[in-house]
Amino acid sequence: MTFDSMWRDLGAVGRDARSGGYRRFAWTREDHTLREWFVGEAESRGLDVTIDRVGNQWAWWGDPDGASAGGRRGVVTGSHLDSVPDGGAFDGPLGVVSAFAAVDALRDKGFEPDRPIGIVNFVDEEGARFGVACAGSRVLTGAMTADRARSLTDGDGVTMAQALAAAGRDPEQLGPDGETVRRIGAFVELHVEQGRHLVDVGAPVAVGSDIWPHGRWRIRTLGEANHAGTTRLEDRDDAMLGFAAAVIAARRAAETHGCVATVGKVVVTPGGVNAIASEVTAWLDARGADQAAVRRVVDDVTEVVDDFGGLVVEDSWTGPTPFDPALVRRLATRLGGIPVIGTGAGHDAGMLANAGVPTAMLFVRNPTGISHSPEEFATSRDCHAGVDALVTVLTDLAGARA
Amino acid sequence: MTFDSMWRDLGAVGRDARSGGYRRFAWTREDHTLREWFVGEAESRGLDVTIDRVGNQWAWWGDPDGASAGGRRGVVTGSHLDSVPDGGAFDGPLGVVSAFAAVDALRDKGFEPDRPIGIVNFVDEEGARFGVACAGSRVLTGAMTADRARSLTDGDGVTMAQALAAAGRDPEQLGPDGETVRRIGAFVELHVEQGRHLVDVGAPVAVGSDIWPHGRWRIRTLGEANHAGTTRLEDRDDAMLGFAAAVIAARRAAETHGCVATVGKVVVTPGGVNAIASEVTAWLDARGADQAAVRRVVDDVTEVVDDFGGLVVEDSWTGPTPFDPALVRRLATRLGGIPVIGTGAGHDAGMLANAGVPTAMLFVRNPTGISHSPEEFATSRDCHAGVDALVTVLTDLAGARA
Repeated sequence: MTFDSMWRDLGAVGRDARSGGYRRFAWTREDHTLREWFVGEAESRGLDVTIDRVGNQWAWWGDPDGASAGGRRGVVTGSHLDSVPDGGAFDGPLGVVSAFAAVDALRDKGFEPDRPIGIVNFVDEEGARFGVACAGSRVLTGAMTADRARSLTDGDGVTMAQALAAAGRDPEQLGPDGETVRRIGAFVELHVEQGRHLVDVGAPVAVGSDIWPHGRWRIRTLGEANHAGTTRLEDRDDAMLGFAAAVIAARRAAETHGCVATVGKVVVTPGGVNAIASEVTAWLDARGADQAAVRRVVDDVTEVVDDFGGLVVEDSWTGPTPFDPALVRRLATRLGGIPVIGTGAGHDAGMLANAGVPTAMLFVRNPTGISHSPEEFATSRDCHAGVDALVTVLTDLAGARA
Repeated sequence: MTFDSMWRDLGAVGRDARSGGYRRFAWTREDHTLREWFVGEAESRGLDVTIDRVGNQWAWWGDPDGASAGGRRGVVTGSHLDSVPDGGAFDGPLGVVSAFAAVDALRDKGFEPDRPIGIVNFVDEEGARFGVACAGSRVLTGAMTADRARSLTDGDGVTMAQALAAAGRDPEQLGPDGETVRRIGAFVELHVEQGRHLVDVGAPVAVGSDIWPHGRWRIRTLGEANHAGTTRLEDRDDAMLGFAAAVIAARRAAETHGCVATVGKVVVTPGGVNAIASEVTAWLDARGADQAAVRRVVDDVTEVVDDFGGLVVEDSWTGPTPFDPALVRRLATRLGGIPVIGTGAGHDAGMLANAGVPTAMLFVRNPTGISHSPEEFATSRDCHAGVDALVTVLTDLAGARA
């Protein structure tokens, strides 16, 4: 299977005919199809498939445990196959398909790795179904407990435990899997860029150096439900006004402090066309290269929300996640001095880095910068440049058998 | 049944234990219970119940057709029993309960009407289920076609035709009902006030003179779905920003032009916490005593939305609806010169007035002004003052048999 034919095979799975976007959510039928595809690709190449306690899939070229015993841990690449609602084709799958294509290229060259090479498909990276991103690598590394994971619910009230059981997995199996993590001597995730840095610098591929600090805050403004037609302005307390001010404050603060800030989800109570809002809950997503600057953005928004008697509560906060500096330097050097960039997006690579695994990323140029949308795109030429970069990296890290 | 015992009986129907508000939607089980209650109250008083082609219930003291034939049409009072989501106890039911209580009081006095007296329960006044307010009186008077009504859908995709059939009614029966309308020589709807005018002037009851011009507009701003973490501010097109500006502009314009304006409902696409909004649709409700001023509010909002490349589209517009000036004067005089006030809320009385029926309203003081909320309230003393006023009005309009 060439890169192009793998890409074609995946293209049909979980695509919504109306939006043109993908709906590939963890432990659904679509996810099952994608997992079967992964096993098929691995087996057709004679790779050994293992599944860890969380359900992440690993395809090994060489024996990871034999190597581990001899002190030569594996070199792992890969990404995820799930998507956000109406997501694009590249976010996730590009890393998995490129990994299989790189193995093919290495074999075509007669390369025999000194260290085992692994390809991973992390389950539930987007968190689209259960609300927690990187769930597969988060539980794997112990950053989220199995109990919390099992009790997460999707929009239909189905718990992750129920979803696992429905997919034929034993929910009690769920838990951190040190044995699997210890097999990973280095992890390099290839991913489509989700911005336009590579367009600006005119390069097809970059090395990822770190994940920006990022967090999520819940903005809650309160008012009094009342009749839209009969309540005088001076008698009304409209929760929508504080919310609108918070949206504008978030954008202004992001500009001032050199960060990004987004309000993308809002719930209004009672939510009637002719009812004054008694409560508005909205979510603020803020990120930036400098964590103090991100905190200043949130402070500015909080000040405005305070003025309206509302509240800003932190839902999650992740500090800066640097990838392994020596590995990042090594990749950038081997790849001829290509750009090294940070990213505002979370990735499974971040979870592994936080668990102490030497980790880096490769980013493939995205001409529009658009991601999490059916418009997400990378040119075939740049995708193949990504595979070439991965071949160089694997050759370097896995060595050639003496 | 006294006013208080009727009020107690209704109190339990369709009340949500959590919110304390009412969920009484057209053609649901709760609505069925309320309709049975209406029939029971009518029959216990020996009133004749008729149901028109739309499903509105009428209870007659005296023969409306006999009277119609003799040129003496009926005097009708009443209101509706349905509610908005988590609505209050008074909006609607107060008018129906007061009507039955007024009939009791007239009979206790030995009054024998010269013209038939009718009590109506209009179905689906709030439009909470199918999205169109005053649906019962709208179809009755021909202001909405039966075809459009039948095809309206609720939040679960059930059409009004299906809901009617499920409730045991023939959807093909639906249509304007001139015979029923012609029975009404005068209509006086008693309703809880939904503002605080009567608190300001210190009166328990007022006569309603007119319904303010009011309309509903759809605000649509467009952006580009993209990743909240990786899309630079200068690369993003966030539909939420234009929406927030519109909310603030609406409030400012309402203050400037002496109207009320409300944005109470909003739908964000894709609506993810980490996705920049590609589309926001929101609804603007604007009303005021002066229709040119209401138009200026909408113009101001449109100008701001235009700046963001968005659109404002009129969903509905109703010009000023004056009640019958002679009837309004007559009521105010008979009731001892009580206040005469306009209202920003739509009512079935407005639909009848637009159909040429001599119409007026009575409003009962609302100490908080809150409506469409579990907090909606009127004191027992004021409710009884409302019944007394209705007794005076019916005595005057229905005459005493010679």
